[in-house]
Amino acid sequence: MKQIRDLLATCSELIRSEAEPGSMLEEMLSEAEKLGVGEDFARRLLGLILEERGRLAGGEAPASGLKLREFASRARELQESGKPVLRLELGEPDFSASPRIVEAACRALREGFSKYGPAAGIRELRSAIASKISERFGLDLKPENVAVTAGGTFAVYGSIEAVTKPGDEVVVIEPAWPLYAHQVRWLGRRPIIVRTRFEDDWDPIPPLQERVSRLTKLIIINYPNNPTGKVLDGRSMRAIVELAEDAGAWILSDEVYMDFCYVDGFSSILEHDFERRIMVNSFSKTWGMTGFRVGYVISDRDTAYRVARAQNTAITCIPEFVQRAALEALEDVDAARRNAKLVERRLRILYEELSKSKLIDVKPPEGAMYIFPRMGIDGFDPWDFARKLLEEKRVAVAPGSCFGEAYQNYLRISAVLDDEPLREACRRIREFVEEYQRKR
Amino acid sequence: MKQIRDLLATCSELIRSEAEPGSMLEEMLSEAEKLGVGEDFARRLLGLILEERGRLAGGEAPASGLKLREFASRARELQESGKPVLRLELGEPDFSASPRIVEAACRALREGFSKYGPAAGIRELRSAIASKISERFGLDLKPENVAVTAGGTFAVYGSIEAVTKPGDEVVVIEPAWPLYAHQVRWLGRRPIIVRTRFEDDWDPIPPLQERVSRLTKLIIINYPNNPTGKVLDGRSMRAIVELAEDAGAWILSDEVYMDFCYVDGFSSILEHDFERRIMVNSFSKTWGMTGFRVGYVISDRDTAYRVARAQNTAITCIPEFVQRAALEALEDVDAARRNAKLVERRLRILYEELSKSKLIDVKPPEGAMYIFPRMGIDGFDPWDFARKLLEEKRVAVAPGSCFGEAYQNYLRISAVLDDEPLREACRRIREFVEEYQRKR
Repeated sequence: MKQIRDLLATCSELIRSEAEPGSMLEEMLSEAEKLGVGEDFARRLLGLILEERGRLAGGEAPASGLKLREFASRARELQESGKPVLRLELGEPDFSASPRIVEAACRALREGFSKYGPAAGIRELRSAIASKISERFGLDLKPENVAVTAGGTFAVYGSIEAVTKPGDEVVVIEPAWPLYAHQVRWLGRRPIIVRTRFEDDWDPIPPLQERVSRLTKLIIINYPNNPTGKVLDGRSMRAIVELAEDAGAWILSDEVYMDFCYVDGFSSILEHDFERRIMVNSFSKTWGMTGFRVGYVISDRDTAYRVARAQNTAITCIPEFVQRAALEALEDVDAARRNAKLVERRLRILYEELSKSKLIDVKPPEGAMYIFPRMGIDGFDPWDFARKLLEEKRVAVAPGSCFGEAYQNYLRISAVLDDEPLREACRRIREFVEEYQRKR
Repeated sequence: MKQIRDLLATCSELIRSEAEPGSMLEEMLSEAEKLGVGEDFARRLLGLILEERGRLAGGEAPASGLKLREFASRARELQESGKPVLRLELGEPDFSASPRIVEAACRALREGFSKYGPAAGIRELRSAIASKISERFGLDLKPENVAVTAGGTFAVYGSIEAVTKPGDEVVVIEPAWPLYAHQVRWLGRRPIIVRTRFEDDWDPIPPLQERVSRLTKLIIINYPNNPTGKVLDGRSMRAIVELAEDAGAWILSDEVYMDFCYVDGFSSILEHDFERRIMVNSFSKTWGMTGFRVGYVISDRDTAYRVARAQNTAITCIPEFVQRAALEALEDVDAARRNAKLVERRLRILYEELSKSKLIDVKPPEGAMYIFPRMGIDGFDPWDFARKLLEEKRVAVAPGSCFGEAYQNYLRISAVLDDEPLREACRRIREFVEEYQRKR
């Protein structure tokens, strides 16, 4: 078939060319229109070509999230074999849901709230979330602006599906939770990585200004940040909104650490009037409910509906008894406050203790539940370091490279142990850094 | 850019041509190889072209599943406004999880089993499922052959992702649960609909033989069947396996109604030695645990791992306290037996009662929890009928067209009420069919 030969040959040329994606898109869209072919088809075709170009140029990014899981399994193994490990490698609070929340789940189970329910979540919970968030940010959200999801994870996943198409460009700011770029790739969209730097106080604005373009369909941000702990103020948030405005892009603001904020001036995307905004949140961190798997999306009605539809397609709905526990959590203001204070104290300990080493560069924590120190050792190999630290000192931390290839000199340390073990872990880290430096 | 113009023009020609997909694929793959372009790229490109061809030819199938949900909401509304409705329109048992199962969930919650867990499910549950199913079918399954999922829904979703790629052809046998084709489309694969007929006793073999080809990557089957209640015997199952063998395709066998089987000779895909087989199951029907959202996949290790990976990407994991309830359910043999007997008795009632009408054609139920009668009225409009039946007689049933456009003359009636209300519902249906016929 001559057409197929032509088709593949042209594709191959384009894959190997250096044609600029932006002008390719424009051309694609105008040709598609002329020929009566769908715009969606043209976009996905371009996405396919750019993806193949990327693959031939260097291939997939390594699945660093998975590697961290394996590392965590090794730490657990050591622990279970009777060798106590100070575990600071995961993003999971050590505190659990309060008894009040647990009992709400049990009550709901006994009352038979264990049937299929709406894909967007039960009305009561959507309504309670809408009120609470409206009150906090002076808004007038309706239950229809809320979709309750299987954790923050599906909130992000479903939002990517809701507002982008295969082949679309999604900007991810590094260092970042590895799942963002992974989900973007998994869904056939193209992650565009924007790197922020320790030296610039992790400021995302200049690198975003450089990379965001008319091709950008979605910008994913996450403040208070995992792993850096950075909090973004209103001015910076405004700058991002303006960029998105000009590009015609959406903003997904993952604010799951919103309640763990230890400086003034935190700005939620919801404080900025912008149509294409999505706020992602979760019950996991604030209330220690990681294993309940409940989070939510706040957005315009159509997007919330699309997220719910994506959820309906993948998992039908989440358990109602879980949602009733979340409803109780919203009322448990004490637990939220207690947990936030706990994390704050621990972050301060981490900062003070790590600052004592001349080989460790660390910024005062602003929020979230991590500290992301820079190790002052040339050619530092974070995996080698983390593995040896675990085997020799029984302390588990996450290598910085899990959060972006550029962060080889960093470690992420989670504030998920009590004060004393936390101090002890820092002492061992300091000690080991010295040894590690000497041995080189 | 001349290349882009050429590219779109060739695409447009191919989209509008009648070139046969099978030979297009062969040509694509051989050209791709010559040019050093990825096979995956070529497959997805072809998928895109065929999808666009389908779209221009007639567009999307209507989201009948969603329509049914809206209809169910209307039934609920009537009920809540104080007008009792006999509701037989949904695929949800009226019985709930036994107290024993509920208490297991509560115990797990109180014991703090509410942290992140493995994406494939907790080892104990995978192991218990592997043993139970091994025992039943004389196999030697390992925990690694099992992935615990967010209901049967994600078991199917994750399996489609695991064994096919965008653009791939997936065969779905109608009448069918509308989510299969919806998920296939959602994930960018192409559903190929194979229709079975009442007159042929819903035999899927001849139509499958006609449609399955080297382009087929996956065949989705579901016996005992929703909505027809048909059970497939070993000989038919063997015939499907042979077809898949020849085509190089996978088989996904959704066996969530496995325990609701009322004739001899049910054959599980697991009784047939075949490498590319996936069995999907759920706790929803057997134990009335729909709202717990827990199901599983049984397959080769690599596929189970891929399903778990898909789940990790979308939702991280499912709650451990839910999995501990499922673990208890496996032990609650009494509940499973009781529920199966209940459904059997009700199906018999449905059959007997509906057989009394000369305008209703109905087959003796073999399994699952539905009856799928054919209405002997020319030009029957199932939506019109169902809506009027609801408003005038306060009985809710599902229009046959929800399960495939060809099934306009059918209704699906679920065995989800007690004997007496079920008899009453049938009486009203019989009465209304007469009136409906007279009024035409």
